[in-house]
Amino acid sequence: MSDPYQRPQYPLLIVISGPSGVGKDTIARLLMENENFYFVVTATTRPPRPGEVHGRDYFFLSHDDFAQMIEDGELLEYAVVYNDFKGVPKQQIRDALASGKDVIMRVDVQGAATIRKLIPNAVCIFLTAGSEEGMIKRLRERKSESPEGLKLRIATARQEMKRAQEFDYWVVNADAAQDDAVRQILCIVEAEHHRVDQKPIIL
Amino acid sequence: MSDPYQRPQYPLLIVISGPSGVGKDTIARLLMENENFYFVVTATTRPPRPGEVHGRDYFFLSHDDFAQMIEDGELLEYAVVYNDFKGVPKQQIRDALASGKDVIMRVDVQGAATIRKLIPNAVCIFLTAGSEEGMIKRLRERKSESPEGLKLRIATARQEMKRAQEFDYWVVNADAAQDDAVRQILCIVEAEHHRVDQKPIIL
Repeated sequence: MSDPYQRPQYPLLIVISGPSGVGKDTIARLLMENENFYFVVTATTRPPRPGEVHGRDYFFLSHDDFAQMIEDGELLEYAVVYNDFKGVPKQQIRDALASGKDVIMRVDVQGAATIRKLIPNAVCIFLTAGSEEGMIKRLRERKSESPEGLKLRIATARQEMKRAQEFDYWVVNADAAQDDAVRQILCIVEAEHHRVDQKPIIL
Repeated sequence: MSDPYQRPQYPLLIVISGPSGVGKDTIARLLMENENFYFVVTATTRPPRPGEVHGRDYFFLSHDDFAQMIEDGELLEYAVVYNDFKGVPKQQIRDALASGKDVIMRVDVQGAATIRKLIPNAVCIFLTAGSEEGMIKRLRERKSESPEGLKLRIATARQEMKRAQEFDYWVVNADAAQDDAVRQILCIVEAEHHRVDQKPIIL
């Protein structure tokens, strides 16, 4: 520390994760409205849900285009999630880090594990439902699933809940309390900016 | 983790420290007004400043009474600070932990080092002035010092500023921005309650 009154401030890489059906997409969208974050758009082969916009919510890619990105080594991490591919384009991270803003990534639980390995000083937040019933209710209401798909998602979400301890923070996203979850995440971001042991993100 | 939806919540031990003249006392008082914290009252042999109340701001003890507490092993830590003794009564910590509330301690920089050793999961916050000029200005304005005392405090404060990296968080307490500092500390407290690796304070 050269000047103790002028401490360094680095952009954070904030990973929002949690089980399927916990509301990651909604929270990510609300965070974007609240603050001046750089939002890393994930690529996926799944079809858009109503209201989702290509390039804002996801890059909706064909299987061929996604395969090409894998071939070109252009994905930071990718995984098959319920028969669909999801992955984080490296160019998105490069652009994000160049922006100087805090970066938000919305990643499923297995993706978050990979990111933690690649970027140890990422701030990893685990979103959880207030109860298992609440989580299952949300998955049912999504209605974009076949009955078999729903069953698979519930079983996976149960397994994913057990991985919360791998994360830095946990935030409950209870029904009708999304604003609380957003406020708590913004607090975590603010607190992380006050940490003494901040280091720049190196990729 | 037995039930991943019911994560444990433990009271935090929050140590507010920082160099002499940074405004630890004022911030501690503002925090008490804002939130339902348990405030650990420090014992000191220094005379009260205007407005300070025995038992609320400090326990103002005679040198004899302070010496007796040392003899009885009733201080968690104590130190001679500018010819005055300051120390944390163990009974205060016992009462605090029994209350179930988050506990706030306001401790000088050398005291904080001792507390960190005794209680590694204490949340240690380093208050800093926005600039050296600001800190010196505050020390001058205190007017409770002899010119020699002031000189000693300035030299010590400069040394203390170099120990910020031993803490978990740093918060700037700039002139006319105390509310910002309080808000930031409340955010740090909230974020710490969302940490996955919370552990109870064991003394």
